[in-house]
Amino acid sequence: MVADAQLPTGVRTVYWEDNSEGCAVCLLDQSVLPQRVLYLHLRHEADVAEAIRSLKVRGAPVIGVTAAFGMALALTRLRRERDSLSFSDARAHLAATAQLLRQARPTAVNLPWAVQRMLHCAERAVAVGSELPELVALLQREAQAVADEDVAACLAMGRYGAELIPDEATLLTHCNAGALATSGLGSGLAPLYVAHQAGKRLHVFVDETRPVLQGARLTAWELQQAGIALTLITDNMAAHFMCHAGIQAVFVGADRVAANGDVANKIGTYGLAVLARAHDIPFYVVAPRSTIDLSLATGEQIPIEQRDPSEVTSIGGHMIAPVGVAAANPAFDVTPHSYVTALVTEAGIARAPYTESLPALCAGYHFAEV
Amino acid sequence: MVADAQLPTGVRTVYWEDNSEGCAVCLLDQSVLPQRVLYLHLRHEADVAEAIRSLKVRGAPVIGVTAAFGMALALTRLRRERDSLSFSDARAHLAATAQLLRQARPTAVNLPWAVQRMLHCAERAVAVGSELPELVALLQREAQAVADEDVAACLAMGRYGAELIPDEATLLTHCNAGALATSGLGSGLAPLYVAHQAGKRLHVFVDETRPVLQGARLTAWELQQAGIALTLITDNMAAHFMCHAGIQAVFVGADRVAANGDVANKIGTYGLAVLARAHDIPFYVVAPRSTIDLSLATGEQIPIEQRDPSEVTSIGGHMIAPVGVAAANPAFDVTPHSYVTALVTEAGIARAPYTESLPALCAGYHFAEV
Repeated sequence: MVADAQLPTGVRTVYWEDNSEGCAVCLLDQSVLPQRVLYLHLRHEADVAEAIRSLKVRGAPVIGVTAAFGMALALTRLRRERDSLSFSDARAHLAATAQLLRQARPTAVNLPWAVQRMLHCAERAVAVGSELPELVALLQREAQAVADEDVAACLAMGRYGAELIPDEATLLTHCNAGALATSGLGSGLAPLYVAHQAGKRLHVFVDETRPVLQGARLTAWELQQAGIALTLITDNMAAHFMCHAGIQAVFVGADRVAANGDVANKIGTYGLAVLARAHDIPFYVVAPRSTIDLSLATGEQIPIEQRDPSEVTSIGGHMIAPVGVAAANPAFDVTPHSYVTALVTEAGIARAPYTESLPALCAGYHFAEV
Repeated sequence: MVADAQLPTGVRTVYWEDNSEGCAVCLLDQSVLPQRVLYLHLRHEADVAEAIRSLKVRGAPVIGVTAAFGMALALTRLRRERDSLSFSDARAHLAATAQLLRQARPTAVNLPWAVQRMLHCAERAVAVGSELPELVALLQREAQAVADEDVAACLAMGRYGAELIPDEATLLTHCNAGALATSGLGSGLAPLYVAHQAGKRLHVFVDETRPVLQGARLTAWELQQAGIALTLITDNMAAHFMCHAGIQAVFVGADRVAANGDVANKIGTYGLAVLARAHDIPFYVVAPRSTIDLSLATGEQIPIEQRDPSEVTSIGGHMIAPVGVAAANPAFDVTPHSYVTALVTEAGIARAPYTESLPALCAGYHFAEV
């Protein structure tokens, strides 16, 4: 079985550092992978927000973890820089940081979820009369707890999901829902890693996932490092290989799941789900409960991020379209719950009707608004 | 109405040149568009075959035209270079050139169709006792006739297809089936050009069409030049916009159509057809009769070209995947006839059952094997 801390890539996506140079949120810069393995040491919460915005760190679970560390960083930094910091200044700064981080990207609910959890932690500390040094330490511990719970959730999702994978399985995945998208084994890829470690032989078709190429750059790299056989394909080849390569299941992650089971995930996921249905292939979504947003009745209410069209008109700085051409760049789409065969969480596998199975799985998990 | 010779791009994709420098097949180099508009002057049939192989010229109808000119070039060139050329040498050289050109790419049937037509022309000339100079001139005229008939076929397909397009239409297209893919207005795009010229207002979603990006580089450029509103999207966005943008029809070209109506076309076409069906959107294939191969009962018999995986792992020379990753690169897929709402040809519109409508449209068009 996979050890909790052992990532298939052998690298950490995000971690907290506190040494003689001060404290920092350390991130593997995913925008330059696989050509370079570069760590960023971010010492200001604004830099954390910018790293999330510019996709230096991406993947719903890990941007939640990153935001949690960003909240801890905000107060730790301010307290070290200011000789006297009042409680009300501290709370105001946390509120402002929460706003800054929440605005970095709109679709993945893990981001506001983690920020909310950190605010909640601070309010609890205030309520019981904690001193400022205690509050700072509490926020650091809470952020680490968010990270540690993500590691554990990945492993649990992996174990549940691995049961859906037969030996000698041919699978397909989209975008990157692997170790790089989390603090642990991944969401969509966790079942594959657990199945692989258990000795099951896998072959994975990896969608390159335009425009940002998370499949070609990140998933292909992760699977290669883990020794799992893969074939990289362009997104438009998926239907062809569903028809001709004996693909037995599709595994993807999620950025937000509505109460009815509708799933927002990387653009292209909806099309894949429709194609999987047409080929009688099960379509599995793997996501921790921090990705489930019971406050939204349906996926239609999920905000879809529209990114810069230059991501479509150029690749790696290389212009591919005529100057002046209009391009669209929705970063996500919504897959209606009717296309989702099962939703694998760290608390078990949910199936339709999701309006019943999701609240049951999330009972006692979500916390009140602050 | 669009004049026959007036291409929406204002450029010629392929033409014959014979001046003081000798004869040449002149090609617009589509591999460097839209950044550069560069013409190649090819003076040897081997260079023509290589230009087809390396996608300097692509698009089923125009590679047929190019191959026809390549056959004419082969004999014209040889006769000028050799003081004495026997009839049997000429016939052997034409047969060898036919083989060379046919092998350049396997899927588009227009290529062997045009080569066969040129051989047929030569055999007819021999049968009626033509002299060698006469044969050379005949082949040049036949190649020009292939080009001219393609221009006329495009216009006819455009007129038939335009009737399927309402005013204020939102359409989607894949790859490039435009002027650049033909000698004329295009195949899949011809109806759009005719509708646009007739004053209908169009908005076209253009799939970028990885790996070679014919949509982003060529179709976007053509439509921009023609003044037709377009939105460039990545291939994996098609389903999202079918669901949300009110797309009313999909128009594509074809590389080979089997006798039962199965359609081989650029990779991704099959997936689009499945998605169109799921969204109740008509799926139109536009192709001249030279693309129809009645000798193949079904699409399963169509040879699918497998191109170099480096087209997938890199873009514009920029490596996007980890070194050593396996990639697949089928250049085409096959769309079963059941997904094809109608097949628009220059002789009219065919609908199911295609086993009846296609032979009826092609009656008297195809010629015997040589």
